[in-house]
Amino acid sequence: MPTRPKAPPSNPDDVEATFYEAMQQGDIELLMSVWSDDEEIACVHPGGPRMIGAAAIRAAFEAVFSNGPVDVHPDKVRRLHTHAGAVHHVVERVRILSDQGPQSAWAIVTNVYVKTPQGWRMVLHHASPGMTREVQEISEAPSTLH
Amino acid sequence: MPTRPKAPPSNPDDVEATFYEAMQQGDIELLMSVWSDDEEIACVHPGGPRMIGAAAIRAAFEAVFSNGPVDVHPDKVRRLHTHAGAVHHVVERVRILSDQGPQSAWAIVTNVYVKTPQGWRMVLHHASPGMTREVQEISEAPSTLH
Repeated sequence: MPTRPKAPPSNPDDVEATFYEAMQQGDIELLMSVWSDDEEIACVHPGGPRMIGAAAIRAAFEAVFSNGPVDVHPDKVRRLHTHAGAVHHVVERVRILSDQGPQSAWAIVTNVYVKTPQGWRMVLHHASPGMTREVQEISEAPSTLH
Repeated sequence: MPTRPKAPPSNPDDVEATFYEAMQQGDIELLMSVWSDDEEIACVHPGGPRMIGAAAIRAAFEAVFSNGPVDVHPDKVRRLHTHAGAVHHVVERVRILSDQGPQSAWAIVTNVYVKTPQGWRMVLHHASPGMTREVQEISEAPSTLH
């Protein structure tokens, strides 16, 4: 599969956009290009084990892409940025084909990016098991608990 | 419950130790003291929604602690550190009482820490749903996929 070399990403949003573009295209080389060279990069797929290091992460995404591209779209992105790191909280909407036709599932995801000499890179993708209805978000304390 | 003021934590490991100490003691004030003041701090409990901000996070832990302290222990900690941020991958072992006596459950957790003017602070706690057997970890690619 052709790999399109890209300029070093200048911010975490560019890295995130490339990650989801790679997922949507099933492009393993593009997907791996967003990750940091650090040996401790980590990935958790919904319901799956903890994977540490590029070899394990590549193998897991190769297995995913063996079923074709993933129709996944980031939504409700919240950002916590410092000058050298960024934590993104993402709700992923995944379109899947079922016996009842196309359906949506959701996952709660944390993506972490670090500024490296090669530009911003992903160091973590942690996805909690998807739900078949839209994920609930709580950003204010329920008053009944006070 | 009494709050014990602590010196500003000088590294991410100190923050993590205090976080789990607070869980084990059911001490909500100690637990909240480890979090950054940033408005975008986030927490995902196993199988739960995404919670953003201190008020939502406090309410969720108050609900947890209403059942008492949590007998949770961090295990297999992997660390990705930069000068201003740290990503910790943790396997949590939780001891629970069941009809068959004490049993263990496991969760896959990411904790993220950022260096702030007040010392190192937690900005993320993301826990994937626990399993009733020990979590599998993959740190080398399965050779069958190559």
